Amino acid sequence: MDERLERQMAFSLEIDKEKNILRQTHLSGGGRRENDAEHAWHMAIMAYLLKEYANEPVDIARVMIMCLIHDIVEIDAGDTYAYDLEAQKSQKAREEAAKQRIFAILPPDQQAELTALFDEFEEAKTPESRYAHAMDNMQPLMLNDSNNGGDWRQHNVTLEQVYGRHTQTKLGSEKLFELADAMLKKNHELGNIR
Amino acid sequence: MDERLERQMAFSLEIDKEKNILRQTHLSGGGRRENDAEHAWHMAIMAYLLKEYANEPVDIARVMIMCLIHDIVEIDAGDTYAYDLEAQKSQKAREEAAKQRIFAILPPDQQAELTALFDEFEEAKTPESRYAHAMDNMQPLMLNDSNNGGDWRQHNVTLEQVYGRHTQTKLGSEKLFELADAMLKKNHELGNIR
Repeated sequence: MDERLERQMAFSLEIDKEKNILRQTHLSGGGRRENDAEHAWHMAIMAYLLKEYANEPVDIARVMIMCLIHDIVEIDAGDTYAYDLEAQKSQKAREEAAKQRIFAILPPDQQAELTALFDEFEEAKTPESRYAHAMDNMQPLMLNDSNNGGDWRQHNVTLEQVYGRHTQTKLGSEKLFELADAMLKKNHELGNIR
Repeated sequence: MDERLERQMAFSLEIDKEKNILRQTHLSGGGRRENDAEHAWHMAIMAYLLKEYANEPVDIARVMIMCLIHDIVEIDAGDTYAYDLEAQKSQKAREEAAKQRIFAILPPDQQAELTALFDEFEEAKTPESRYAHAMDNMQPLMLNDSNNGGDWRQHNVTLEQVYGRHTQTKLGSEKLFELADAMLKKNHELGNIR
């Protein structure tokens, strides 16, 4: 096997570990906790299906690969819960180190390409990355809403916190933000969000 | 919420169930059994990274969405092991019924689109679907090889069976078939494949 393919396969095997990184979100039907790979799969399909609602036209291949790889750094850095302020202080440094190690397994051109896609997602300034962030928010919102807000109740989440997060959804999709808004109001009325 | 978005969200929630469909493949490091959503996520990333090895140029967005949705029918039909001849007799009928039910949750235009993508994958006649099949074979091969062939040993799989499956890999990617061939020969020599 030549060195290029060897590195591509080594990276492909390395990312298998993402299936062991658990999130705070639970599967629908009150199931077990979801892992990062499942979350990314779900986001990428939703991105494809809902692309008509992106605020600006998007290159859907770039959105999908961005969704699929956006949590790979959590193999080393772990999942940081959206509403855990303490963990968020060290998140950037942990994820930066992980990004350096994991993408360096790839051949240099693909290391550069995936690092750029990862950074683009994090910066959330392009139509693709803004729309991908809307998916990153809508997917757990949908699951949590289907479970009568169990994850919000468990973590005592406030309306202010969830709206803070969904300002990003609005930058990616006004239409999906309307849906998020309706779901959040309903869950606030039900007492699922403080 | 308008009816179109309502159907798109209902479908998005329905496919969450794919995370509960277990395959025979085990995660690297001798981990637990993999589920369909994880497998599809892994395939889609590998498709993106290895696209230079497709026998013909491919539209990578179409390959990725095909990889992501190709097992959705297993929500109803269950996973059929690649080397289980008895289960394969009823596989087509079970998956056809599932396809009808699950994709019908979508708005009609998207039902038609995803059904066509699913059928294209199954028929394996286009460059995209042939390359996607190569991923469907290479991803579990890579994991099983990393686990010293545990899945083959458990199911008493023969060299003839695995080569039968990898004729498809060759149609999608000659280069990746070479890699598969080397991995299979090694595992045969090790006694992992009969």
